[in-house]
Amino acid sequence: MSSPTARTAPRKRRRAAAAPAAARASLTPEAWIEAATAVLVDEGIDRVRVDVLAGQLGVTRGSFYWHFRDREDLLRRVLRAWSERATEQLTRRLESASASPRAQLRDVMSLPFRGRAAARAARIELAIRAWARRDDIARQAVDEADASRIAYHTQVFGGLGFAAEEAAMRAFLLYSYEVAESLLNRQGSAAQKQARSAFVERLIVQPLGGP
Amino acid sequence: MSSPTARTAPRKRRRAAAAPAAARASLTPEAWIEAATAVLVDEGIDRVRVDVLAGQLGVTRGSFYWHFRDREDLLRRVLRAWSERATEQLTRRLESASASPRAQLRDVMSLPFRGRAAARAARIELAIRAWARRDDIARQAVDEADASRIAYHTQVFGGLGFAAEEAAMRAFLLYSYEVAESLLNRQGSAAQKQARSAFVERLIVQPLGGP
Repeated sequence: MSSPTARTAPRKRRRAAAAPAAARASLTPEAWIEAATAVLVDEGIDRVRVDVLAGQLGVTRGSFYWHFRDREDLLRRVLRAWSERATEQLTRRLESASASPRAQLRDVMSLPFRGRAAARAARIELAIRAWARRDDIARQAVDEADASRIAYHTQVFGGLGFAAEEAAMRAFLLYSYEVAESLLNRQGSAAQKQARSAFVERLIVQPLGGP
Repeated sequence: MSSPTARTAPRKRRRAAAAPAAARASLTPEAWIEAATAVLVDEGIDRVRVDVLAGQLGVTRGSFYWHFRDREDLLRRVLRAWSERATEQLTRRLESASASPRAQLRDVMSLPFRGRAAARAARIELAIRAWARRDDIARQAVDEADASRIAYHTQVFGGLGFAAEEAAMRAFLLYSYEVAESLLNRQGSAAQKQARSAFVERLIVQPLGGP
């Protein structure tokens, strides 16, 4: 769940503000998307407006319309960029499917703990979830990302030998845990988080005993 | 996580708008808090403003200051009302501690599935979590609510015979699952949700096998 694009946004914004007018006119759509993502995280969706972004980027509102039809178009592309990063990661993981299922499990479980990149990605994701409460397009993007990730987790548990239905239930529980480690990141010390991650890794692969 | 107060807000708002001026002047602080919570959920924290609420309630801005020092004061009381509902529920549960630990476990696990009340409470909670990303007071309220709930879950697992440290880890995992059932409520059919709840209930109490 890392997000190199969004992380570099503030630096790029500063560069853009200091750049000569010719360079400003050549702002890429990606620069607008990065800036919009940063404003979404820091100030909320209502502040993601063409005038606010143009001001931050030091360009005219008009230059926005060179790349985007309207604000709606920008918002869709913010979501698409986020979804692509989420999907991309899954793809990278699927490509490394030669790793043992147990190594794949450890890999997905390490995601919430990958330092600043994970923390930044978590902030973007929570901002998008908040937006999704009030917007159907955002809602759909979030639902799809969750479904893809749960499907990937299901595949990992399938690789570990669990039947489809049980693999899906274990996948949901593990994904819940990962979302919570990111959402409830103030709960527990670093040592406690490490201990419970090791604990969850053991419990989640345990076959179910008698009823 | 039910929230009878917030649920009745729209009805009360309509009543207030139709009431005579004398009745309007007698709006309780709770009515303001309910209205503020509803606006927080439906439109986001930035729209929780004295003028917006006064307009909705059909009263003057001045009458707000009869009950509250300022917007900040209102926001603190919105959080306090939410926290109190969360704590109240825990207290009710602690009082029913004569129930078996297994019954207590089933009780907390049923929370995300309690129909419209749970859905409304989940929307309020997600709105407050979103707000907490950008506000320290909200952040603190959310952290405290999470900590209390995890502590209660830990106590339930203690009652089931697990040692303190392990009880805390199981509590975090179970609470993660409950938060996720509410946050990721579009993932899975009703039947799948029921099946995975039963599955989690079995797995979460299973003793840990060999390493």
